[in-house]
Amino acid sequence: MNNFDFLDNDRLKKQLEFLVEIDKMKQVFRRTVLVDKSRRENDAEHSWHFALYGMLLNEYCGDDIDVNKVIRIGLVHDLVEVYAGDTFAYDAKGKLDKTQRELDAADKLFSMLPDDQRDEIRALWDEFEAKETKESRCANVCDRLQPLIHNFLTDGHTWKEGDVSSAQVLERMDIIRETSPELWKVVTGIVETSVKQGILKE
Amino acid sequence: MNNFDFLDNDRLKKQLEFLVEIDKMKQVFRRTVLVDKSRRENDAEHSWHFALYGMLLNEYCGDDIDVNKVIRIGLVHDLVEVYAGDTFAYDAKGKLDKTQRELDAADKLFSMLPDDQRDEIRALWDEFEAKETKESRCANVCDRLQPLIHNFLTDGHTWKEGDVSSAQVLERMDIIRETSPELWKVVTGIVETSVKQGILKE
Repeated sequence: MNNFDFLDNDRLKKQLEFLVEIDKMKQVFRRTVLVDKSRRENDAEHSWHFALYGMLLNEYCGDDIDVNKVIRIGLVHDLVEVYAGDTFAYDAKGKLDKTQRELDAADKLFSMLPDDQRDEIRALWDEFEAKETKESRCANVCDRLQPLIHNFLTDGHTWKEGDVSSAQVLERMDIIRETSPELWKVVTGIVETSVKQGILKE
Repeated sequence: MNNFDFLDNDRLKKQLEFLVEIDKMKQVFRRTVLVDKSRRENDAEHSWHFALYGMLLNEYCGDDIDVNKVIRIGLVHDLVEVYAGDTFAYDAKGKLDKTQRELDAADKLFSMLPDDQRDEIRALWDEFEAKETKESRCANVCDRLQPLIHNFLTDGHTWKEGDVSSAQVLERMDIIRETSPELWKVVTGIVETSVKQGILKE
């Protein structure tokens, strides 16, 4: 059963059904809260915000970045969580089977699309996960920096909840240290200020 | 006062403060509800979904579309609503002062950014509003089609709430008729099916 059975264009029916399915991203909630602390952020909101981070901050991730690819990666990097759910960044146990859960989810979700678009989105997701290209590294920087800033501005909400130390935060931000000297100053400034304010333990 | 006063890079401080400010998009609620009917959709979620619509459906909006521009337009097209709020599509009264409210909001919000990025985002927003370029037309198609599909799949939620007729819906979708024969079939199919199902009045 397809919601668009009145159409005779199979390609378009697949695309529309996929676009309906990913509406579920709006109900996958992350640990991070909104800056106003009113509630947790969901994956659709995070992906939008990530794309804006990439659009505005890519200049700090090195020369000749294909910013459009960074943006596209941002839009699709968490899609698998529609089926695999969000795994908390500091949850060592949940991370054990994360890879397999997400691979299964990718197969199931992306195969709703026509083959060419399935391959396009799968390639963006694979690139993000591999952290090898400039664009992937820049995307991973955005993915780390956005929740860091939210934790900083919400009195360490997620850090307190997960009993996370400054060393753990710095370790998680390692891709920023490797990729962007300028954004690494944001990380160290936030961590130092947060420890001083007592919202992050040493 | 800037949240990032520990930095000595004024450009970066402006960019980060802007990225924090636009978190408010996650609290600007639209009339449209999620496909699961649980609650209204917010602007951040809609912008993300719009960008995905552009990424997957631009092929139906004509040849040589710069899809990356369509995506960027999607990401920023509703930013002014952080200050101007959402105006219901079928609210004739609210529309009277919409333009001025949004122009004021654009001046205030975009001027938080460094001049080059302020101009870049302003240009994308102006292009969207003017509906003249191929990319703007494709973007406006996505902006119309996404809520139409949500209304269709939620038993005409917003149509009933606003006592909207099929003629009003078709009129609002006019940009799709002008731009994309293939997507216009989606519109007419949805409207015909919805009238038949009794979720949209004739």
